[in-house]
Amino acid sequence: MSVYSVILAGGSGTRFWPLSRAARPKQFLPLASRWPLLVETARRIAPLSTARQTFVSCGAAHASAVRRSLKAIPARNILIEPVARNTAAAIGLAATQVALREPRAVLQVLPADHAVRDDERFRACLREAAHAAEHGSLVTLGIRPTRPETGYGYIQLGDPIDGGAFRVKSFVEKPDEATARSYLQSGQFLWNAGIFVFRADAILGAIAAHLPKLAEALARISPTIGTRGYRAAVGRELKKLPSISIDYGVMEKVDNLAVVRGDFGWSDLGSFASMPEVRRADERGNVVSGEVGAMVDCENCVIFAGKRPLALAGLSEMVVVDTGDVVLVVPKRDSQKVRQLVQAFEVRGLKRYL
Amino acid sequence: MSVYSVILAGGSGTRFWPLSRAARPKQFLPLASRWPLLVETARRIAPLSTARQTFVSCGAAHASAVRRSLKAIPARNILIEPVARNTAAAIGLAATQVALREPRAVLQVLPADHAVRDDERFRACLREAAHAAEHGSLVTLGIRPTRPETGYGYIQLGDPIDGGAFRVKSFVEKPDEATARSYLQSGQFLWNAGIFVFRADAILGAIAAHLPKLAEALARISPTIGTRGYRAAVGRELKKLPSISIDYGVMEKVDNLAVVRGDFGWSDLGSFASMPEVRRADERGNVVSGEVGAMVDCENCVIFAGKRPLALAGLSEMVVVDTGDVVLVVPKRDSQKVRQLVQAFEVRGLKRYL
Repeated sequence: MSVYSVILAGGSGTRFWPLSRAARPKQFLPLASRWPLLVETARRIAPLSTARQTFVSCGAAHASAVRRSLKAIPARNILIEPVARNTAAAIGLAATQVALREPRAVLQVLPADHAVRDDERFRACLREAAHAAEHGSLVTLGIRPTRPETGYGYIQLGDPIDGGAFRVKSFVEKPDEATARSYLQSGQFLWNAGIFVFRADAILGAIAAHLPKLAEALARISPTIGTRGYRAAVGRELKKLPSISIDYGVMEKVDNLAVVRGDFGWSDLGSFASMPEVRRADERGNVVSGEVGAMVDCENCVIFAGKRPLALAGLSEMVVVDTGDVVLVVPKRDSQKVRQLVQAFEVRGLKRYL
Repeated sequence: MSVYSVILAGGSGTRFWPLSRAARPKQFLPLASRWPLLVETARRIAPLSTARQTFVSCGAAHASAVRRSLKAIPARNILIEPVARNTAAAIGLAATQVALREPRAVLQVLPADHAVRDDERFRACLREAAHAAEHGSLVTLGIRPTRPETGYGYIQLGDPIDGGAFRVKSFVEKPDEATARSYLQSGQFLWNAGIFVFRADAILGAIAAHLPKLAEALARISPTIGTRGYRAAVGRELKKLPSISIDYGVMEKVDNLAVVRGDFGWSDLGSFASMPEVRRADERGNVVSGEVGAMVDCENCVIFAGKRPLALAGLSEMVVVDTGDVVLVVPKRDSQKVRQLVQAFEVRGLKRYL
């Protein structure tokens, strides 16, 4: 069985600003280790897909950064999207590439900006998913929840099929806290991590059924692959498409969906507040990157120090980030307000810091 | 009546670090206006004492900074202390200088690092004190308390004497909060601001009675004033003296003490938390100096921005100071922990930031 991978590196979020910038979004940051998340992701799946079998999808602005980060990946495997059109289009393009080579090959889809603590268990889970996918199912990885998280979508387990996979009873939108708590207790709900495994022909078939416009665009792009006309064709076709996620556009609509349960220390690194999920905290719960000048009576903080010393005292549950040109201070629970700060910087003409 | 002034500029505290540094302590910072506190203090008393009648007491390390700040003051009026020996010695030295010129002249003693909102009322209060001092009393200014402050010493009012002055019933050490509250309600207790007015001969007499060693040292220094031997004599004599405050060494022991009540918007600027006493806060209670990049949902904070933009969200009662080389973040209520940060920097060999 051939297993291809596509790493989705098209993200441009601002939740890790000012660490992340327009030219260097989260997937290029070494948040969970000394390597960028993108590099960690590529390494993590290298035992499953060869470099030739690994695609990376990204925006035009980040193509050269991807190439520099992942030198082993052939240049033609970097799938550049001139306009961002969300995951359905990105996955469709990758599946079209794979289908030209091996229509029945398995394709695994991995966000470039997630962290995984136990790579072995992660790969074991992907292997299980690939087996389930071989027979035509669209397989999603469901993460065993560890807290009543209200920021994720959930997958409800259905009947078991073969080899540890299950049918999917339903996809559920982000729940309120009471509901999330009941999900956690029931054991029947898993986090939707946006990690998918399917045969190239299976996902293209599902796209044809549920996103016909995308299917038509892919059909027009397909003959140009490997030719000079490819880039122009992609640009022309993507521009006409709506921005739709694979979850909403396909996964929630098909009936041959399966889920494989995973428990491998996953984090989507949703904000600075999630740093303790991926970095060891000190005995007072502080996660510190870089050299702090002095910390006195601080607990459960997330600190990114730059070249200058930080002097921090009496802080609790606080995020402090010094990037040299900008200093961010925000309570962990208000991490989502970073977006408003970015907007305020934009409005005030401070775009060079974004 | 000749009125001399001595501005006590010997402070070297760290409570405004990293704004203040060893080479530039608080009195040199423009905390309450665009002028350094020292300059404001000198301006404030200029209508009462001529430049020739104004002395400034400071450490050797700050003498040239004082000269640069106060160009009108004659160089011989800058009283340099080679070693810091607290207020008793500083005031004794100034009184000795004044006594050589006019023994019965009135000397007013003013800390260099306080802020006053209403200069007119302040001067009116000093004039009242000078009148009371003319007859030989040692006069202290008592500030009408505006909150149950536990960080100050208090002066208990005694019987009225003449011209609005009162006898002092007692000096009280920093009270606990319940006591401070009862003081506030009683109307009989005033804050001891460390502002004193007395005749030069009167304070020298009191020093002779209660700090005989200091009196002897001053007697040995006096003949050297205006000669080449002066600096050496001061160094030699100060070194032998203990460090004693005028409050503890003299004021609390004499019986010819009087107090004049003052109500002129006084602040001793004890820490970053006291900034709202001297700077206008915005509608959300934030006192901001410099250009902040963006503030979202912040209230009652004290912010000193440097050249780089600060991005602050969701902060309440927080102090953020960016001096370019150091960034301080500390809750207002923990302002006193700045001292521990300074110690930590010292221990870690980061002295160049102190």
